[in-house]
Amino acid sequence: MKLPKKTVQRLSRYRRLLLKYMYVSDPFIYSHDLARLLNLNPVQVRRDLMLIGSSGNHRKGYNVNELNKLIGETIDSEYQQNIAIIGIGRLGQAILSYVSGQEINLKISAAFDIDPQKIGKKFNGVSCYDISQLSSVIKEKNIEIGILAIPSEFAISIAAILLDSGIKSMINFTSVHLDLPKSIYLKEFDMITTLEEMAYFVKCK
Amino acid sequence: MKLPKKTVQRLSRYRRLLLKYMYVSDPFIYSHDLARLLNLNPVQVRRDLMLIGSSGNHRKGYNVNELNKLIGETIDSEYQQNIAIIGIGRLGQAILSYVSGQEINLKISAAFDIDPQKIGKKFNGVSCYDISQLSSVIKEKNIEIGILAIPSEFAISIAAILLDSGIKSMINFTSVHLDLPKSIYLKEFDMITTLEEMAYFVKCK
Repeated sequence: MKLPKKTVQRLSRYRRLLLKYMYVSDPFIYSHDLARLLNLNPVQVRRDLMLIGSSGNHRKGYNVNELNKLIGETIDSEYQQNIAIIGIGRLGQAILSYVSGQEINLKISAAFDIDPQKIGKKFNGVSCYDISQLSSVIKEKNIEIGILAIPSEFAISIAAILLDSGIKSMINFTSVHLDLPKSIYLKEFDMITTLEEMAYFVKCK
Repeated sequence: MKLPKKTVQRLSRYRRLLLKYMYVSDPFIYSHDLARLLNLNPVQVRRDLMLIGSSGNHRKGYNVNELNKLIGETIDSEYQQNIAIIGIGRLGQAILSYVSGQEINLKISAAFDIDPQKIGKKFNGVSCYDISQLSSVIKEKNIEIGILAIPSEFAISIAAILLDSGIKSMINFTSVHLDLPKSIYLKEFDMITTLEEMAYFVKCK
């Protein structure tokens, strides 16, 4: 059964919160506390956890370690999934340093750039390769997810190389919309467009 | 008439592309070229531009300067709208440096942090204030849009201060969902949740 996107997003958030309680001995949490800490509706929390087969205990709540394990079994892959970050400018470095500090089943395994000052260096322990090696490194390291943090003018050509190299999902931070086959799970986020959209709806109020 | 969100997003993208041609003398562009450069459907481009009252010229296409002006009149406010960025860590700095370089009608007018090393300094020309001054600076500088680039544990309390200070729109980069009144135009983006969502749908393929 494939879960709805919003449920997967919430499961990811539950787990990130629960990880903080893992080192407490025998930790339990009530759905209403989980809901309160994440600013969600408790009914929704219980429904999500029911959906993955956890019903909790009326008196003690949910066993944190069991719940963590269950969320992992539900949303994680059995192997650690690899990510490439293309473009290691300010945004790329911000993402890399943020993601590297998290306890997740995902690993940024390679970075790519065109800047000779960056190629061959390591960023948060991740090697930066020349963009010309994109296809070969993606295949060699079995990278499934690509983060596009490059200038917009390169978005289409880089996405085409990623597609040819067998990547399965991309997140696009450029202002160019990518028109990819449905087999690629695509997320797009453009900062300027988002701010201009916000400004427009503020103006219209 | 309030335009649909997706239309506003595309108008923002058209303009960003068109700005590159502004300094050419008497520039014109065909809808199919605009579509191709942004990887969109030409019919959609013509429909969007029709919606804002521009029908172009069959032989020459659209007058770039007129179109730019029309998009501005449609989506921009008559005054420059102010943005505050809360949290000037790696992500905050990446956003600030990215946004500062763009020709837009929006201005990041203040940054906030709790780090004494950052308070009182300027980042890309923008002053960083102590977080305790959040409410007063927001009001004083008439800031309408807030970017939350802070650790998740502060999201709810900072959002509450922003709300009280009269902010009209927020973009939340933390992992905590914000449950705000409908009068606030809210966008949320959580990097880890997004990557875990991508990984889940890759796994399910």
